[in-house]
Amino acid sequence: MASVNPPRGMRDFLPAEKARRERVLAVIRERYRAHGFDEIETPVMEEYARLHAGIGGDNEKLAFNVLKRGLEPDAIRAAADDPAALTDLGLRYDLTVPLARFYASHRGELPGVFRSVQIAPVWRAERPQKGRYRQFVQCDIDIVGDASARAEAELATATLDTLDALGLEGGSIRINDRRVLDWMLASFGFTEDERPGVLITIDKLDKLGPQGIVDELAGRGASPEAVEAFRAFLFRPQTREYNPFGERQIRKALPEGAPDEIVAHLVGIGEAVAAARDADDIPLVFDPFLVRGMGYYTGTIFELAHPSVSYSLGGGGRYDGMIGRFLGQDVPAVGFSIGFERIVDLLEAGVDAAASAVVLVHDRDMPTRELLALKAALVAEGSRVRLEHRTKNLKALLERAEADGYTAFATVSAGVARDDIEIKPLG
Amino acid sequence: MASVNPPRGMRDFLPAEKARRERVLAVIRERYRAHGFDEIETPVMEEYARLHAGIGGDNEKLAFNVLKRGLEPDAIRAAADDPAALTDLGLRYDLTVPLARFYASHRGELPGVFRSVQIAPVWRAERPQKGRYRQFVQCDIDIVGDASARAEAELATATLDTLDALGLEGGSIRINDRRVLDWMLASFGFTEDERPGVLITIDKLDKLGPQGIVDELAGRGASPEAVEAFRAFLFRPQTREYNPFGERQIRKALPEGAPDEIVAHLVGIGEAVAAARDADDIPLVFDPFLVRGMGYYTGTIFELAHPSVSYSLGGGGRYDGMIGRFLGQDVPAVGFSIGFERIVDLLEAGVDAAASAVVLVHDRDMPTRELLALKAALVAEGSRVRLEHRTKNLKALLERAEADGYTAFATVSAGVARDDIEIKPLG
Repeated sequence: MASVNPPRGMRDFLPAEKARRERVLAVIRERYRAHGFDEIETPVMEEYARLHAGIGGDNEKLAFNVLKRGLEPDAIRAAADDPAALTDLGLRYDLTVPLARFYASHRGELPGVFRSVQIAPVWRAERPQKGRYRQFVQCDIDIVGDASARAEAELATATLDTLDALGLEGGSIRINDRRVLDWMLASFGFTEDERPGVLITIDKLDKLGPQGIVDELAGRGASPEAVEAFRAFLFRPQTREYNPFGERQIRKALPEGAPDEIVAHLVGIGEAVAAARDADDIPLVFDPFLVRGMGYYTGTIFELAHPSVSYSLGGGGRYDGMIGRFLGQDVPAVGFSIGFERIVDLLEAGVDAAASAVVLVHDRDMPTRELLALKAALVAEGSRVRLEHRTKNLKALLERAEADGYTAFATVSAGVARDDIEIKPLG
Repeated sequence: MASVNPPRGMRDFLPAEKARRERVLAVIRERYRAHGFDEIETPVMEEYARLHAGIGGDNEKLAFNVLKRGLEPDAIRAAADDPAALTDLGLRYDLTVPLARFYASHRGELPGVFRSVQIAPVWRAERPQKGRYRQFVQCDIDIVGDASARAEAELATATLDTLDALGLEGGSIRINDRRVLDWMLASFGFTEDERPGVLITIDKLDKLGPQGIVDELAGRGASPEAVEAFRAFLFRPQTREYNPFGERQIRKALPEGAPDEIVAHLVGIGEAVAAARDADDIPLVFDPFLVRGMGYYTGTIFELAHPSVSYSLGGGGRYDGMIGRFLGQDVPAVGFSIGFERIVDLLEAGVDAAASAVVLVHDRDMPTRELLALKAALVAEGSRVRLEHRTKNLKALLERAEADGYTAFATVSAGVARDDIEIKPLG
């Protein structure tokens, strides 16, 4: 007999937790919509070949694949050394691959600059651990068709506004540009072949510290002169004090001679976000060592930070090359994914205080038609109504209802009219 | 290269259609919540053994199954004649099997009478055809732990209220009881072994007509005396005029001597729904030939009807035996599934007229910081805002925005302030 638990690494959501998740999603959906992002939806499955085209990075290996229907014994035997032949579809591991496929399919029906929202589950067959699940919700906004800094600024503004609306004011965005990283590593003397490996090492800066990074690079046999140039830069005085956000600080954070065009793109993002936020402090922090894992990023990359936590609450970047692969024509694109699961965990439990929610505690022998008429009257007045048999342990019953968001209760019995009911607050 | 279309039988939803679906879901969610149903969520995958335990009927054969991870060649070869050995998980094909598993897992954390809502996609590998999809959304409400007619009455009331709230007033519920069917077939003389087959035939009454039913039963070799008794009953005068809903009409619709307890249960449902709806007409129609396909129904069965369409808009029934299979203890349960996909197709396209939604048409050279400050000001005022470059074909651009739910537009250029913008209605 199968277990009554959900599959390994996946979760059931009970009413209170489900309501909390839906409230958070409603805020996110509403804010993104206000900022002009249009929600779309794609099927949870995509063709196997699309999910395994090298775009998804390490996540491709974690995909759940779907068994072909109607497989004959010979076909199964023939697939012994090629399990991919057993599958034709897979569950998406992110929302970016489906978006690229969607855009390629529907471009003619979409605005020239297409701002999308996707709020949907993804699946990864990871080893389950605390805070990491095999099914989780991603909330992505993307702008397709705009190569200018305006796209990044719209994403950053919408994301910070959404964080504010969730009660998480004070968020900021760490920002860098893959082209800056590439130029910087070239300026130290790393060869084009070495640079991808160097990026993987730099991505561990928070974990290993500057000396750890240098040691790892040296240990991997990178050009000694380049490692030394990088070391000298890392350990120069005043490294990583780049506030406030502006051209002077960005240039100070980089080796001399950073390309004007890239610096101007970053500065443009900051100016536009500042204008939109109407705030003195630009909520951006330039971080020349921000890498982000995915291989498809081609320009700006960002991560969402909040003072209450040490980990990031989301991130994204520009991936101008990817949609072109499907379309046979380059299309600029940039996206930001807010970390829904982390944000839900961060927010106070709270209940939906706005609506009146009443538990009607009734005698067991109360006629059903009277009981349902009372319930209907309260529902018609705008209340949410739960019926409960009167039990000896009324306290436990009411406490459970309160945890589910109920705010009041009334005791009713046969013959009572709506106007006779006394509704008392819970708790 | 993979196709840019969604997988066979599955759909992408563009912004206008997605917004429409979300609006319908929001109404359903809000109404069910008001009626005291608590939303829960389970993972899209369940263990293979659970999905294939004989509860899902024909749907089990349609399940998408997930390939085991890390299969070795020998294991694949060994599974040649038993493809089930290649899979450990499957995508759910309904929301009832997951609910039963959920309830068995979390019973101690749920109210004694648990009213659940599930709004979620399911998957079936059916041959795609018009109006039938391989991924579609189901909206189920269920009441677990209440054997009384009150449970059916709460489901029916909540369902009809939801239909009203969607603008589909005038709905009604066709109702029957599996025990009535069983008693009736026994009274004609069908043996216990014959009855399941007879039910399958009766389920085709709308398609084949009374004579077609009789012919099919005779052709299948059912007891000739029983077929004759059934024929005489089917063709007696006044068959199928059972309005209004009440004991007299129910008895009139059945052979003589229908069991008091079952008739009283049906009458009780009608009285309670009438009291809750506060209407003279009870919106129930007794149909002694309503069967419903699923094998797990044990009592009341219903279908949602609306005068605007000939097909049903949902249905459900009592399945007191199922949860007991997981729990080792009988638990009464009854559910109603509203046909979300059919209802969405039925409703007018319409747009969300409540909110102000503005397209800001701007010159290409307008400074980004000015543009984003204007956008932010309008967003802060409560508008939804989309930015668009000014193009030669302004008309096409505005028409597309209108289809996406935008209600107004304004033309802006460098140096313009919020108060200078003239917002004009679209369309």
